[in-house]
Amino acid sequence: MAPDPRIAVCPGSYDPITNGHIDIISRASGMFDEVIVAVVNASVRKSKSLFNAEERIGFIEHATGHLPNIRVVPFDKLVVDFAREQGAKAIVKGLRAISDFEYELEMNQLNRSLASDVESVYLMAGPQYSFLSSSGVKEIATFGGDVSGLVPEEVARRLQEALGR
Amino acid sequence: MAPDPRIAVCPGSYDPITNGHIDIISRASGMFDEVIVAVVNASVRKSKSLFNAEERIGFIEHATGHLPNIRVVPFDKLVVDFAREQGAKAIVKGLRAISDFEYELEMNQLNRSLASDVESVYLMAGPQYSFLSSSGVKEIATFGGDVSGLVPEEVARRLQEALGR
Amino acid sequence: MAPDPRIAVCPGSYDPITNGHIDIISRASGMFDEVIVAVVNASVRKSKSLFNAEERIGFIEHATGHLPNIRVVPFDKLVVDFAREQGAKAIVKGLRAISDFEYELEMNQLNRSLASDVESVYLMAGPQYSFLSSSGVKEIATFGGDVSGLVPEEVARRLQEALGR
Amino acid sequence: MAPDPRIAVCPGSYDPITNGHIDIISRASGMFDEVIVAVVNASVRKSKSLFNAEERIGFIEHATGHLPNIRVVPFDKLVVDFAREQGAKAIVKGLRAISDFEYELEMNQLNRSLASDVESVYLMAGPQYSFLSSSGVKEIATFGGDVSGLVPEEVARRLQEALGR
Amino acid sequence: MAPDPRIAVCPGSYDPITNGHIDIISRASGMFDEVIVAVVNASVRKSKSLFNAEERIGFIEHATGHLPNIRVVPFDKLVVDFAREQGAKAIVKGLRAISDFEYELEMNQLNRSLASDVESVYLMAGPQYSFLSSSGVKEIATFGGDVSGLVPEEVARRLQEALGR
Amino acid sequence: MAPDPRIAVCPGSYDPITNGHIDIISRASGMFDEVIVAVVNASVRKSKSLFNAEERIGFIEHATGHLPNIRVVPFDKLVVDFAREQGAKAIVKGLRAISDFEYELEMNQLNRSLASDVESVYLMAGPQYSFLSSSGVKEIATFGGDVSGLVPEEVARRLQEALGR
Repeated sequence: MAPDPRIAVCPGSYDPITNGHIDIISRASGMFDEVIVAVVNASVRKSKSLFNAEERIGFIEHATGHLPNIRVVPFDKLVVDFAREQGAKAIVKGLRAISDFEYELEMNQLNRSLASDVESVYLMAGPQYSFLSSSGVKEIATFGGDVSGLVPEEVARRLQEALGR
Repeated sequence: MAPDPRIAVCPGSYDPITNGHIDIISRASGMFDEVIVAVVNASVRKSKSLFNAEERIGFIEHATGHLPNIRVVPFDKLVVDFAREQGAKAIVKGLRAISDFEYELEMNQLNRSLASDVESVYLMAGPQYSFLSSSGVKEIATFGGDVSGLVPEEVARRLQEALGR
Repeated sequence: MAPDPRIAVCPGSYDPITNGHIDIISRASGMFDEVIVAVVNASVRKSKSLFNAEERIGFIEHATGHLPNIRVVPFDKLVVDFAREQGAKAIVKGLRAISDFEYELEMNQLNRSLASDVESVYLMAGPQYSFLSSSGVKEIATFGGDVSGLVPEEVARRLQEALGR
Repeated sequence: MAPDPRIAVCPGSYDPITNGHIDIISRASGMFDEVIVAVVNASVRKSKSLFNAEERIGFIEHATGHLPNIRVVPFDKLVVDFAREQGAKAIVKGLRAISDFEYELEMNQLNRSLASDVESVYLMAGPQYSFLSSSGVKEIATFGGDVSGLVPEEVARRLQEALGR
Repeated sequence: MAPDPRIAVCPGSYDPITNGHIDIISRASGMFDEVIVAVVNASVRKSKSLFNAEERIGFIEHATGHLPNIRVVPFDKLVVDFAREQGAKAIVKGLRAISDFEYELEMNQLNRSLASDVESVYLMAGPQYSFLSSSGVKEIATFGGDVSGLVPEEVARRLQEALGR
Repeated sequence: MAPDPRIAVCPGSYDPITNGHIDIISRASGMFDEVIVAVVNASVRKSKSLFNAEERIGFIEHATGHLPNIRVVPFDKLVVDFAREQGAKAIVKGLRAISDFEYELEMNQLNRSLASDVESVYLMAGPQYSFLSSSGVKEIATFGGDVSGLVPEEVARRLQEALGR
């Protein structure tokens, strides 16, 4: 195998990052030489994000600071195009539930019809994260629930400020 | 077992109540000493409800008036927190389809990480209600279809006024 | 069997038509004497369509011009009512994935409770179309991806004008 | 459209026929000029059937005797090959649940890679039949339950003789 | 509400009991006055069980000895008939995954068509048990894996004796 | 990253190998320094395989002979134990459908509770392979269908000898 570093991209909107995301990123970090956490730039998305791209990137950088080989980068194009630009050979995503799987299967087959040289690989969420999503966490915070334990401490505090009553 | 009354909460947005909801509430009514139908207060929800909380509560009260042990109450916090406040030991929900199941499984595991002392129990919708949802009923009414037979008579009339053309 | 022509309705919002839709319409065209492609009129829909009904109808007419027995018609009522008006005995729809299936099962049972004389029949999408949806195509175009090969040429060009950057 | 009769094949092992099968066959009977109920010959199957092919065919003939355009025929080859031999343009199958759908989607795509000129069309089971399967009925009969109402009377009696205790 | 004790039945083949079963039984034990763990008698089942009914009952009795209101009873009839005989108003089952859900939905609707006076209620497996099944545990033991932590200690030892190499 | 070769294990019963398996193995081959195709030794399995381990290994060796970094090895222990023994950091598996996904999710969480140092990664089957399975191929061959195009030529010939009539 070539001496090129093996680079993977972990794309997402991360609005905000959860402990489940951190688990996937950290497992990817152990499998690749470099992991680029690619954060969808809010401006291209239809639905408004709660936190802007800068804030979301900041949360991720704090949460993954202990990992040696992570870069956090905003992007606003197709994931396959971004990956190719970055010299990444793989896109890494977590799967939690059937609904994840169906969406990812569709996206995968669409992406492969667009760029067959970038491979997407999937990791299964651990049981303790299989129920965890950014939108679930935001819903809990909206109803005044305690989300520490589900997201990094800083994110929990900021969610409470933004959504708590 | 203690002489405490056994209280269950049936939470939902009930926008509006359908005959499927009534079936679940009525089956819960036979299993518990008291059933609190907990109606999500529209103001906390992201998406606007068609009927306001007062109207939705009115529909439920009329539709469950024949049951001896029902109370209809608005709420605007986490279901587990509301249930605990009301002294309820159980949250009762209906399951109709896979998509229901996945969402409920996720919520269940999230709720249990927040409040493990409130148990959620699920009843399967009867075959004749397995296709019935508030949003489906609203869609039919929007396109001028006849929804009597799917919802209480009063609700059918009000849907036609609100959405019919 | 009666000498009546056998008419089928292929309903959808077709915003815009994809090569997967064309495959289903063309397979329906081989099974029935006449196929009415019924296009949901945007004004009744909650979510705004990208192309207006006239544009969407134009795309379909161009894309199905080689088929002898197709008519493209806008509609704004329940599919079962529209089908009955047109003298159609069958509604034909494609199934790609579980999420399609669950939605269609629900709609089917709802429709049958409204009009049991119109039968809905389902065709399975071919493997090469099983990942293809109007919304996926629009997402790719939004992110600057190449959608030729997924939709008719004219539609690809119009998507790029409307969404490309 | 050509004056050829439109023939459909309804394949299955029918071990034994249920009221759900009868519903699908009868709906197919209204859509096609002739419906051939094709019964898998037990000898080719891995798992032993409870009733032999002759018995299973007899049950179907009795249960569909009121329909004018049904023929019941054993077969022991690929359904697509059998359909082509019989001059059938369509294979008709019922869908009840996700597990049905996944299996049928797989088989459909496999069949289309073998014989693209035979179209498979699917009908959704009515709500009252969506829980009904030959194996479920046999399990109930094994445990001494009452299966009348789920299968034709004659079949119920024979199941009790064969499995009841 | 009547002073009758509220009895629930937790049916299964329990071949052998896992920590996931124990979790469901123990949660049921907190909700009902008495819980009858109903163990399918091997002789009626098509597939041979690894442990005979006596062994399986012994494992359950040891594993639930700390719970005050459990009785373990073999049965060999329809669960609804058994429940009715025992004066139970509810059947309690755990749901782990989609495949569980589909099977249970089917069984539920079948049971309700046989005995509408016995209600089945479902509890969602906790995340840490959502991957756990008797057959999975047996497969691991067959391949020499360590199943302590998945089943009670006694069961782990007996599995290793029976299946280990 | 360390200079250790990165080894992946592709486990399966491969009874027999299909073109879908070859696609997954070949994609894994491009991502890892070495890929060990691990073939379940028939003797440990409950259900009898059609081809013995030697035959199945031979088919795979022929079919992957053009790939530089493949070894085919029989195994008869837990996949995670086998992977650890071989110094593999990853187990690579293909996902085709929901049923695959549910099974793999369960196995993944079970495996991680047994050996958290071996990561399982999943690749999505391409659309043209999403309907392809060893058992489907054997069923087609049993009914006299043509399986060339679904499996390597040699396998097609051997299937016809073994199952054809």
